[in-house]
Amino acid sequence: MDIQRPEVRLQDTLADVTRLLRRHQVLQELALRQQGPEDRRDLVEQLQQRQNLAELDKRLRTLHPADLAYVLEVLPPEDRQLVWQHVTPEGRGAVLVEVSDALRESLVEWLDRDALVAALRTLDADDLGYLADAVPADVLVEASHALDAGERTWLHTSISYDEDSVGHLMSPEVVSIRDTHTVDMALVELRTFDELPPHTDRLYIVDARNVLRGAVPLHALLVSEARTPISSLLETDLVAFTPHDDADDAAKAFERYDLISAPVVDERGKLLGRVTVDVVMDFIRDEVEQQALGQAGLAGEEDLFAPVWDSARNRWPWLMVNIVTALTASRVIGVFEGTIEGLVALAALMPIVASIAGNTGNQTIALVIRGLALDQIQPGNRRYLFRKEVTVSLLNGVLWGGLMGLPAIAIYRSLPLGLVMMAAVALNLIIAALAGVFIPLGLRQIGRDPAQGASVLLTFLTDSLGFLLFLGMATLFLT
Amino acid sequence: MDIQRPEVRLQDTLADVTRLLRRHQVLQELALRQQGPEDRRDLVEQLQQRQNLAELDKRLRTLHPADLAYVLEVLPPEDRQLVWQHVTPEGRGAVLVEVSDALRESLVEWLDRDALVAALRTLDADDLGYLADAVPADVLVEASHALDAGERTWLHTSISYDEDSVGHLMSPEVVSIRDTHTVDMALVELRTFDELPPHTDRLYIVDARNVLRGAVPLHALLVSEARTPISSLLETDLVAFTPHDDADDAAKAFERYDLISAPVVDERGKLLGRVTVDVVMDFIRDEVEQQALGQAGLAGEEDLFAPVWDSARNRWPWLMVNIVTALTASRVIGVFEGTIEGLVALAALMPIVASIAGNTGNQTIALVIRGLALDQIQPGNRRYLFRKEVTVSLLNGVLWGGLMGLPAIAIYRSLPLGLVMMAAVALNLIIAALAGVFIPLGLRQIGRDPAQGASVLLTFLTDSLGFLLFLGMATLFLT
Repeated sequence: MDIQRPEVRLQDTLADVTRLLRRHQVLQELALRQQGPEDRRDLVEQLQQRQNLAELDKRLRTLHPADLAYVLEVLPPEDRQLVWQHVTPEGRGAVLVEVSDALRESLVEWLDRDALVAALRTLDADDLGYLADAVPADVLVEASHALDAGERTWLHTSISYDEDSVGHLMSPEVVSIRDTHTVDMALVELRTFDELPPHTDRLYIVDARNVLRGAVPLHALLVSEARTPISSLLETDLVAFTPHDDADDAAKAFERYDLISAPVVDERGKLLGRVTVDVVMDFIRDEVEQQALGQAGLAGEEDLFAPVWDSARNRWPWLMVNIVTALTASRVIGVFEGTIEGLVALAALMPIVASIAGNTGNQTIALVIRGLALDQIQPGNRRYLFRKEVTVSLLNGVLWGGLMGLPAIAIYRSLPLGLVMMAAVALNLIIAALAGVFIPLGLRQIGRDPAQGASVLLTFLTDSLGFLLFLGMATLFLT
Repeated sequence: MDIQRPEVRLQDTLADVTRLLRRHQVLQELALRQQGPEDRRDLVEQLQQRQNLAELDKRLRTLHPADLAYVLEVLPPEDRQLVWQHVTPEGRGAVLVEVSDALRESLVEWLDRDALVAALRTLDADDLGYLADAVPADVLVEASHALDAGERTWLHTSISYDEDSVGHLMSPEVVSIRDTHTVDMALVELRTFDELPPHTDRLYIVDARNVLRGAVPLHALLVSEARTPISSLLETDLVAFTPHDDADDAAKAFERYDLISAPVVDERGKLLGRVTVDVVMDFIRDEVEQQALGQAGLAGEEDLFAPVWDSARNRWPWLMVNIVTALTASRVIGVFEGTIEGLVALAALMPIVASIAGNTGNQTIALVIRGLALDQIQPGNRRYLFRKEVTVSLLNGVLWGGLMGLPAIAIYRSLPLGLVMMAAVALNLIIAALAGVFIPLGLRQIGRDPAQGASVLLTFLTDSLGFLLFLGMATLFLT
């Protein structure tokens, strides 16, 4: 038997491909240097180069599309382009489905219209629907000519569903059996399939009008007598979705009830399709990544090896916001320039007030975002959470504020300065706690992603108000 | 049929339970107010209270353990404790497996030794192994007496595996069939099971020494003739793991190859057990959450409704680090107090230099952490990535530094001040880019989680060096 240790295999593959690419590079450089007349050595090199590329072709053809996608993600742009040229149309179609949004954009750009259509024609309606947003509309239409009429209808409906809906995750590949069948009739019907669709853990049982009646696990069929009526094996306590249900809720149900597949029905209970766990896993991975990047203030998913200009622009929107907030905080300080001139120690101490509050506020934000993502924050417990966070920050504020007052006293030998420092840190920590709870909740309330930009907003508040509190109190009490 | 819309059901459940808890509270308050002699009204109230709790019992008994776990996560501590008292031992066992680490700690504390043992005795070896770290060793030993000898052995082995290894995710529940069987012999063997273990998508085929030969999908059995030899249906191109493989690599393989289950074998190829997709999904969810919280500087997973004191302490380790770094940055400013006294505009502008660099650096960190998590950063492309990030930051530095110089010139009417500002922003952005790449790579290199504390370290560098650059150049050129 051929037991695959997947990570070992993948690293071997990458090493192989990289070796072939490097050899290609060397051969090309050699060819460029010999600009003289075509002699025999030149021919030998051309032959070597062709052999090398043929070997690359061969290596790429044996790869699982997911592995090929990984190799492309990891290679720098020039290598990527070379490898991409050597992938077959079938391979290209499958790879486009697997890669990240950011890389997909480059890969689509590198194909001319005909090559793109050829790649897309190898895909089923399901995968085409998934790629719909990433390719030009006319290319999609042309590629969809390869589908049969039923699949084409399905493609049109599936594109119409919202990107965050179950309809977007749904696949039409579902094995359904009439509720009047017996086990042996069902088996006969199953034999008409060359292969069951992947992740078929159970058969969906429908009535004459295609209304979902329940499901029968495959293993129940295996261990039942041939004459058993399907209806007697029926599991009726099913988790099912409609196409308009929230994809995020569906994903949570998969996690919570350990599902492999779940049926999708219309409002009259008719079976439309199915959602499978592999699609749900990809959805979850996408979602958490989007959140992590959004929190750091990146506009979108970024290909790690994207052209410099694309990368630079991806970071602008939030940088722009950041510059406005930083300028505002700076103007707050500007108001107190007179005070600082009189007591320059304030300039050295004020960043501490802002920094500690910013950090604790971000801790609160991380907890609240997680609570929201897991649906743990409900109208009934919001007040409790709020009270708790303020108490925690008060506790930490008194403790750390007190501690931070000490160096102020020690270095600048001024008790009043130390007291102002303590009060400012404590108050700013409370502001940070309130902002840490309210900013993500507020973003969610207005229908935005609670992670996106939350940190930038928070830092704006803790910086500006921190400077205001510290310098304001210093103006009142120290001058 | 009973089609379940999971999110609707869950919210209904939560509303039901909350209603019963509130009613319990009201009844208890009424009882407390009537401290007089026991009269009939009192009896009626006692009866009401008992009925109410009986209703709560009934409602809780119908809940899926995952839903019960959710309800407990969402309730404030007092309500939690009441609900937890009313869960049956079986329910408690299952809930302990489902809840977050943070809540599990409280739940275990709330049970006395006997109740905890009773709850754990309802679990199989697999789940007991999962809980091993969360309960006292002697309780685990006592609970394991309920297992048969084979299961007990398995429990001991599974505990010995590293928490981040495949052994920790593995379950012994695997259906294996001899390679000499025919399809009908296999079916006879399957009929001896009351129910196949969940997520059994295929049977593992072994030889006489229990060495894994391959797998047969359930549906292949369904559509094959009774006399077909199992060996002719064998899929041999299997993804398999050993117990010592990295759990993270296994999770990636599940995502990449859309697996539902994968066999675990020892070094001689003998079948030990199986990893299933539901466990992998939980593992991935745990991992990304841990990362998000670690990045924000939280010591561990935190129960959103944990006691205040626990929450406060969870935030201390990184706060402490933060205070040291903030003090250092403050001392850097302290060195230049003379310069600031001479040109107080510097105090207002210096936070901008630090803030912009901090934000872009965090963008780079988020990208690099993601690249590391997806194994996209390899020795072969590290240099490329590094060059790219520095170029991007140089580009952004010149652009935004130039832009930030303008308000400095406009507000303070000083061209030299504007030029110093520009240069400081540009240089600090380059520092941020270098730190954003090297900090996560460095943390990974020394075997640490690349997310944990990366932001705190970065901000330390961008603050301290930002102040140093800006105030240093100002001292050189402006005074």
